[in-house]
Amino acid sequence: MIGVVATLKVQPDKSADFEKVFLGLQNKVKANEPGCLMYQLTKSRTEEGVYKVLELYASADALKAHGGSDYFKAAGAAMGPTMAAAPVIEYLDAVE
Amino acid sequence: MIGVVATLKVQPDKSADFEKVFLGLQNKVKANEPGCLMYQLTKSRTEEGVYKVLELYASADALKAHGGSDYFKAAGAAMGPTMAAAPVIEYLDAVE
Repeated sequence: MIGVVATLKVQPDKSADFEKVFLGLQNKVKANEPGCLMYQLTKSRTEEGVYKVLELYASADALKAHGGSDYFKAAGAAMGPTMAAAPVIEYLDAVE
Repeated sequence: MIGVVATLKVQPDKSADFEKVFLGLQNKVKANEPGCLMYQLTKSRTEEGVYKVLELYASADALKAHGGSDYFKAAGAAMGPTMAAAPVIEYLDAVE
């Protein structure tokens, strides 16, 4: 399994737009990706405008399928104008 | 829901000991805590000896029950001698 923590910094006045797009993406991921075991948007309690996505995939193939989907690419494009910085993606190997 | 990312830095020669104790804890959490929706030990690909635990709880009560269990306290005591630094625990609010 592979874990991911994606850190997304959003512009102060764009939180509502960002959350709407991201939750739409999250629903599509949960409906279409059996190899995605968790995909949850969370919000920092300490850093204004900072969101973290907690993700877990069954395999490298499942992670690849996630990033290659049309709805992922469309959501990325729609989120772009709401972002305050480039996303920071941390990949982690599950210990099993 | 509440997310947690716990960062644990382990001494270079204590990884095997740490993983054994932690995976035992992880099994107990999964068996006994219906309010814990995810609890997965992962290992950094970039920082030697750094582990991150990806956690998701249904509620604040579920998180409190987790930290208050006897097996959690016992595992914490057993892991202590393997750690290289104090744990860093980040709490995150799920966006729903």
